[in-house]
Order: sequence, then C-alpha cells, then structure tokens
Amino acid sequence: MDAVLAEFVDEQERSALGPETEPLFATLRRLLFSPGKRLRPLLCVAGWQAAGAPGDVPTILRVAAALELFQTFALIHDDVMDDSDSRRGQPSAHRTLSAAYVTAGGPRGRAEAHGRGAAVLLGDLLLVWSDEMLAGAGLEDRARGRVLPLVDNMRAELVYGQYLDLLSTGRITGDVGAALRVARYKTAKYTVERPLHLGVAVADGGPQLMQLCSDFAIPVGEAFQLRDDLLGLFGDPARTGKPVGDDIREGKATVPMALAFRAAPRAERRLLKAFFGSPDLTAEDIDQVRTILETTGARHRVETMIASRRDAALAILQAADLPKDVAETLRQLVWMATERNA
Amino acid sequence: MDAVLAEFVDEQERSALGPETEPLFATLRRLLFSPGKRLRPLLCVAGWQAAGAPGDVPTILRVAAALELFQTFALIHDDVMDDSDSRRGQPSAHRTLSAAYVTAGGPRGRAEAHGRGAAVLLGDLLLVWSDEMLAGAGLEDRARGRVLPLVDNMRAELVYGQYLDLLSTGRITGDVGAALRVARYKTAKYTVERPLHLGVAVADGGPQLMQLCSDFAIPVGEAFQLRDDLLGLFGDPARTGKPVGDDIREGKATVPMALAFRAAPRAERRLLKAFFGSPDLTAEDIDQVRTILETTGARHRVETMIASRRDAALAILQAADLPKDVAETLRQLVWMATERNA
Repeated sequence: MDAVLAEFVDEQERSALGPETEPLFATLRRLLFSPGKRLRPLLCVAGWQAAGAPGDVPTILRVAAALELFQTFALIHDDVMDDSDSRRGQPSAHRTLSAAYVTAGGPRGRAEAHGRGAAVLLGDLLLVWSDEMLAGAGLEDRARGRVLPLVDNMRAELVYGQYLDLLSTGRITGDVGAALRVARYKTAKYTVERPLHLGVAVADGGPQLMQLCSDFAIPVGEAFQLRDDLLGLFGDPARTGKPVGDDIREGKATVPMALAFRAAPRAERRLLKAFFGSPDLTAEDIDQVRTILETTGARHRVETMIASRRDAALAILQAADLPKDVAETLRQLVWMATERNA
Repeated sequence: MDAVLAEFVDEQERSALGPETEPLFATLRRLLFSPGKRLRPLLCVAGWQAAGAPGDVPTILRVAAALELFQTFALIHDDVMDDSDSRRGQPSAHRTLSAAYVTAGGPRGRAEAHGRGAAVLLGDLLLVWSDEMLAGAGLEDRARGRVLPLVDNMRAELVYGQYLDLLSTGRITGDVGAALRVARYKTAKYTVERPLHLGVAVADGGPQLMQLCSDFAIPVGEAFQLRDDLLGLFGDPARTGKPVGDDIREGKATVPMALAFRAAPRAERRLLKAFFGSPDLTAEDIDQVRTILETTGARHRVETMIASRRDAALAILQAADLPKDVAETLRQLVWMATERNA
C-alpha cells in the first residue's frame, strides 16, 4: 500500500508546476505516511477476498489506495473545519503549512489565513488524486460500472455526514439519537461499510454478501466511533495523538456528551453547557467534565453500547460463511475497533 | 446547459440524506444558476465543434456541465480562501451559509466558522459531482482515455495556480513576470485552454488542433485576467458584481499592481505597500491607488498588454482553418474577454 501511494505521489510531484509546491508535498507526505491504521484499504481488500479475490492484485491495491487518498483529503478538510492543532500526534496540515509560510518569509499576519487556504487546496488536490488513482486502477468496464456509483455514494455521504456534524457542533443536547446518526454517517458507513462494499463490488460479490457487509459494518462502525469518543475523553494523548478533551473544546455533539447532559443534575448541566465549545478549557475543566461523565454513568453506558455492538458484529461473523482468513481479519478488526487504546 | 445542471442537482437532492442539507442545496442553486458567462462549457463545446462535432450532443453537454460544476467548486473554495463577501453580486457561499445558520438558531459566535466549514464541504460536494457528471457523460472507452488525463491535468493545474496565488498574496512586488505566471495558470490554462482541449479530445481532434487551441488560449486567457484585474479597480460594481478594490484589500499580486509598484516614486510606493492587503480600506484609499495606477502609466500599460494579446489571438483565428460558426464564436469570445465591462 505504501509503495503504491509513494510511487503515485512521486509521479504527481514530477508533473507539478515547480519548486513552489514543495510545502504541499512535504505536508501531505508526512500525513499520508505517518503511522495510521490504513483501516479503509484493509477493509476494501477484505471485501474483495470475501468475494473470492478474483482478478489481479495491483487493481484492488489501487482501489484501496484511492480510499486512503480520499481519507487523507477528508482529514485535512476536517481539521481545517474544526481548527484542530494536531493529527496523528503531529501538527495538522493547516498548522504545518502556516508554519512553512512564515519560515519562507511570509508575513505573520497572514500566516493563519494562508495555512487554512493552503490546506483547503491540499485537500482538494488529494480528492482529485483519489479519483485519478481509481480511474487508473485498471478496472474493466463492468467492474467500473459497479464501483463508481458506490464511490459516488460514499463521497456524498461523507460530505453530508460532515455537514450534520457541523450543524450539531457547539450545541449540547441530550439527543443521543442525533449523535448516533452522525456517527453512523461519518464513521459506520464511510469508514467500514463502504470500503467493504467497494472490495465486494470489484470482485462482483453480489447482493447477499453486500447485505452481510452492511449488517456487520454498522455495529462495528458505531462502536468504533463510540470508542473514539471515549478515547478523546479518557485516552492517553501519547497514544491517541490528540489532546484530551478536544471534542469538548470543539463542541462536538458526541454520544457520551449527550448521555451525560441528559442524565446530569442541574448544576452539572450548567457546567457542561458552559464548557461545551469553549476552546481554552484547562486540564482541570476537562477533569470536571470527565467526573460528570463518570457520576452520571454516561461513560459506563457508552461502554455497554460498545460491547453490545461488538457482540452483534461477532455474532454476524460467526454465522457468516466467509473464507477463514477474511473472517479472522474482520474478527481482529472488531476487537481493534472496540478495545483499542489509540 | 441549465437544464442538464438542474436535472442533475434535483437528482442529487433526492438522494441526499435529509432536510438538514437544504441550506447546501439552496446556496449552490443560487450560485450555479446566477447569471454567469458559462464560459468554460461554451469553450468546451466550441472545441468539440472545431473538431467536427462527432457523436451525440447529450454527451458533450454533460462534459461541459461537469466543467461548470468544477468551476462552481473552484469559486466557492476561492471565496473561502480570500474571505470574499460577494460573488456575482450576491453574498458568497460561506456568507450565505453562515447567515442561514444564524437564521436556523445557530449560535452567532460560531456563525463565521460554520459558514466557512459548510462552504468547504459544499465545494467538496461540487468537485465530487463534476466527476460524477463526467463519468456519466456516456463517453465511449477511447474518448474517456483521451479526456480523463486532460481533466486530471486541469484539476491539478487549478490547485497549483491557486496555491501560487495564495503564496503571492499579501506581498506587493514589482515582479510582473510572477503575476503573469499566476494569470497563466489560474486563467489562461484553466479557463480557456483546457476547456477547448476537452472538447477537442471528446471529438478526437488530434495534435494540430490541440496546438492551435493552446496558441489561441494563452493570449486570450491572459488578456481575460488582465481585463479582470482592471475591472476590479476601475469597473462599475453594479456590473462586475464585486466592490471596487477588493484585490487590493485582499493583497492580490496582480499585473497592474506590480507595474504600478515598479514605476511608482518612493512616496507612492510606501502608500501602495501600506494599503496592500489591508481589509478595511475606504473608497478614498482606493481612489488614491487608482490615481497611482494612472500616473505611473500602469493602467495604460495593461491596456496595451490586453490589446496586443487580443490582436495575437485574432490573428491566430484569422490564419486558422476552422468551421465558420466556431471561428465566429471564438472571435466574439476574444472581444468579450478583452472589452467586457462585467
């Protein structure tokens, strides 16, 4: 996967218009090749294997690589939208590009706007590349006819999911259903279901296998997001790569927050409202929120939700008639998604 | 063209995830169907006609419509990057979305960030759609093999051109060559050359016609941008749809500014430096800049540059052996691009 991506980026840089674009390439290489889970490519290949792994390997690898390029686009624009400082334990793309701008002698007064604008462009570039990578994957006509509509859906779903996320940001409510809906679009469908479907579509896997992937993906994906939400509050920043409590600072309407808000007594509610979406909360402030998540039982509730979804997904794997190695990969994925600490 | 676009957008809205996305669709419809030049689609069709207009009309119309969707993506992200208030005489997408957010009860404190984020997403959506429109245009395999690489180049060129623009923003210099280079990438290639090439490629027009299109497009495109720069300074806002002097407020390194800076005496230079890139210039400040552009002869120089490029393009049309109606369309385009007042 890394080799396919590296070769593609090198080729793009050779045809770029000049040395001025160096900061774009330096930034995207750091992000694209930083230790990540490569979760979507892995699922795409698993879907392809589940359907018998027909055709040649370079093709499915390029389809999977297109997903990783698309995901990198999504991360970059997401960090711009949330104005996040860091990603995978490193400065986010817009921060990196703004620093590079100042280093190159750009006026400090413009540095933030420049970084934001350059990151929007870098995201655009990666979105265009993911499409170029897919078009060059060597899919034959019928396969392309199966794959492209899925990709179109996936891309639109991500944008709509991000928009729902944006709409709910900064407004704390006890609406657990709404928070779960965002998780379903942003993570369950985009991160798990669609990558599996793509692999199945490449291999012409048919409707039954598609349905199985959906039945498996939705609980795993929701559990993945719920674990992510808890890690953002109780995880070790050294492992997660992001500071504790950023979701609160950014005012993200997550399931844990909705549960806590719904269950909290008036005084704690007022506190959650006050802290929610205020960028400069201290470690002590975050600790208070964590205490509320404990005392209201919200944290425990989320753990229960994760466990039930994990068990549902495992039961589906159990009942499914999948190649041994694929079933094992997906089983490991369920545990990684639900029990990870990073 | 409008019918093709309207049908496509309606279909997308039917498959969108719910009523929450209404602001996205309202904003993009206003932008997509506001009176615009439809310049790129027109050139794409002209290139196709120049090559004999083979194949069916719906296909070339969809390819041309994909260009218009792509252009709308570019405008939306461009306005976010420049933080422009207006576009085509209406509020820019991020302003519209931020206003809609407040109307819907969103916290004012988040309105600007929300508008920016939502506009980034809307641009992403349009970029994805332009690709979907192209894939569904009904190109047969060989045509697609000719068209896609051109589209990949065009999209990357636009991003690189925007990045060059961003790098040069806020730094006034007398470097006319650098300003022209940005104009070449941002406008000449993207707005004129590539659309023509796409039409020619759909029709399998061959290398000679491609070269002719380039020879014609570069001078026209540069003249188009130079006229745009002058209109931004001396045009009638009621016709151009943007306030006078925005390029100066945004600190755009345009050719007129570079010429003026190069030729200005020390006192005027200091003034240009002071005004360049400061967002809250008054009408009087802008008037001072305009006077400097007159007294240094910069405005006159730009008019001369436009005229020589216009004549070069007309001479190429004269010498070319093109279908009468195509030659006429392109001739009108030359005059529109160079002598327009809107």
